[in-house]
Amino acid sequence: MRQVAIAGIGQTSVDEHWEKAIRDLAVDAILAALMDAGRQSAEALFVGNMMSGIIDHQNNLGALIADWAGLRSAEAVKIEAACGSGAAALRAGLIAVASGEVDSALVVGVEKMTDQSGHDITAALATAADADWEVDHGVSFVGLNAMIMRRYMHEYGWKHADFAPFSINAHANALHNPFARLHQAITVEDFEKAPMIATPINLLDASPTGDGAAAVLLLPAEKVMSNNQRPRTIIAGSASVTDTISVHSRRDPLFLTAAYESAKKAYAQAGVEPKDIDLFELHDAFSIMSALSLEACGFAERGQGPRLGLDGETAIGGRIPCVTRGGLKARGHPVGATGIYQIVEVVQQLRGECGPTQVEGARIGMAQNIGGAGATIVTHIIAAD
Amino acid sequence: MRQVAIAGIGQTSVDEHWEKAIRDLAVDAILAALMDAGRQSAEALFVGNMMSGIIDHQNNLGALIADWAGLRSAEAVKIEAACGSGAAALRAGLIAVASGEVDSALVVGVEKMTDQSGHDITAALATAADADWEVDHGVSFVGLNAMIMRRYMHEYGWKHADFAPFSINAHANALHNPFARLHQAITVEDFEKAPMIATPINLLDASPTGDGAAAVLLLPAEKVMSNNQRPRTIIAGSASVTDTISVHSRRDPLFLTAAYESAKKAYAQAGVEPKDIDLFELHDAFSIMSALSLEACGFAERGQGPRLGLDGETAIGGRIPCVTRGGLKARGHPVGATGIYQIVEVVQQLRGECGPTQVEGARIGMAQNIGGAGATIVTHIIAAD
Repeated sequence: MRQVAIAGIGQTSVDEHWEKAIRDLAVDAILAALMDAGRQSAEALFVGNMMSGIIDHQNNLGALIADWAGLRSAEAVKIEAACGSGAAALRAGLIAVASGEVDSALVVGVEKMTDQSGHDITAALATAADADWEVDHGVSFVGLNAMIMRRYMHEYGWKHADFAPFSINAHANALHNPFARLHQAITVEDFEKAPMIATPINLLDASPTGDGAAAVLLLPAEKVMSNNQRPRTIIAGSASVTDTISVHSRRDPLFLTAAYESAKKAYAQAGVEPKDIDLFELHDAFSIMSALSLEACGFAERGQGPRLGLDGETAIGGRIPCVTRGGLKARGHPVGATGIYQIVEVVQQLRGECGPTQVEGARIGMAQNIGGAGATIVTHIIAAD
Repeated sequence: MRQVAIAGIGQTSVDEHWEKAIRDLAVDAILAALMDAGRQSAEALFVGNMMSGIIDHQNNLGALIADWAGLRSAEAVKIEAACGSGAAALRAGLIAVASGEVDSALVVGVEKMTDQSGHDITAALATAADADWEVDHGVSFVGLNAMIMRRYMHEYGWKHADFAPFSINAHANALHNPFARLHQAITVEDFEKAPMIATPINLLDASPTGDGAAAVLLLPAEKVMSNNQRPRTIIAGSASVTDTISVHSRRDPLFLTAAYESAKKAYAQAGVEPKDIDLFELHDAFSIMSALSLEACGFAERGQGPRLGLDGETAIGGRIPCVTRGGLKARGHPVGATGIYQIVEVVQQLRGECGPTQVEGARIGMAQNIGGAGATIVTHIIAAD
């Protein structure tokens, strides 16, 4: 298998794009990625999307977007793994290029969510949980995460305010990301006073949905040159691991086994350890997930994830800067697109393009995308060389 | 890239499986495929499915089915390309094994459609068409195919009854397939008198939906042995090509460009020509699609597909036996599963297990799976060696 480089990146803002169809959003990101790479097209297209069949009444996004992007006849498919669809699509593109099956691949994550009512979106998001064993009994997706958070607080003795640094950091970083959904700094007081959604998760624990698309162009590494302005960015590690969808079926609902295993595989492939990771775009759909991801990936002991936030270690300049462009919490979470936004943001860091939120000397970044409440977890390690 | 063999096959009947959840259907087929191969598990799982998010309120089928099949922690994703999802998932599994990314992969196609109202299923099927440019203007998926058929009859002068042999052959072959949805022979009179759906497509031009799952286990060819009872079956050609989703956007709506191109690629990979193909599991969702597929794949001249049926050339013993186990028309069309049923049936033919519908001396079989009215077309050539 040959090495694969991320030769181009593109993204739309995460916003209410009522004037754009889902194909428009995807193509905006694709054309930006092609332009960034100085290319006209690619041999294949892999689309990460979760819910277009439900809320846009549109399936077969591969063919739809390929045509609209000027790639008619290209092989094109959609990959779905709930909110982990973006990174799952990246893996499909990676394997296609690494194997030599194709010599170039575009991967786009896209989701269009704001045309629908909140009720419809809540129902669509719940398809990430177990329909028969969780959702049919009345729980929503945020409700599942709330039960995990409540249990975690009970077991380890954390207060709700102890999770505030995760959201404060996300909002602070998003101020400097023009593509972010939310541009507003928040305080601990804001965090504690935010409207409740599903106790103990309030509005500032939870990521906002949105419309958006992000894309990358993958090429064999030998076709991509580094230069002084821009290092070559290589996919050094990539792994996807699953767990039960039902949270109640897990031996320990407070440990993300699939995150642990996929990070372990990705570390081994890249030949690195947690201490070598310069920044971590983690899946902060809810603040509790930041804590669980940090623990499962080896950055904190069990039950001690919030400590990293409280000590400032997840902020820019800390030991493991997280969500450096705003994360799901403030850049926004257009679910099937999120995994590609994370990759785009890691590449921006490795290129040194992040201005006030630049991680100095960043050479190795990690991104972790989660489908369901820990059911499908895809970890990528990107290295500048 | 190493050669890949289909080491095991499994399927459920296509039926109204009201007592089984979608995960049960998938796992029944997976366990049958594993047992057929004498294996306990596989490293990765690729799920072909079109509409579980819409009608089962369940996404993230990869993790769901992996867990239920005893493959917890295995990499698992869903691949969607409308009714071409099954073969698209096979390609993902093929590339994963051929590249060495994994040493074994299960591919399962699954769909559960009969718990819902016909209205809901018609709406879900329409997500295979262009939501903005076709469906929003009132056309259903069968309506689109009806317009193609009407135009074809007008251009080439065929009568409706000229399409009867395709359906008669499918029903005749399904009589000997215990997994088929329909076990009833039909005549030209039945065909002409069937209730109209969307002129000129009547009930016997159209394939029935159903619940069902089919699975294959893929292994590196060097790990699979032939023996006297069972030849080794190799994926000799595999290609996926897209076209516009909107039928009106195509230069010629009566030619399946994506079928032509994907068959051409698959022939080249396998080193064969149409005359070398011993049987063809084509995508007869509607009788018109049989004609168009035969023409695009080089078995008939433009506009002359129905002639092959009228001359008996698509029946067992003819020049190019088609839908030897009943096809979509009579085995049934559980949409995301269909592409894997086709592969399972080709393997049954190459193994000589098809009884009265066995194609004598079959060594090379082709399967073609179509998503949308010609938008995503995936062609596989399987060879016994």
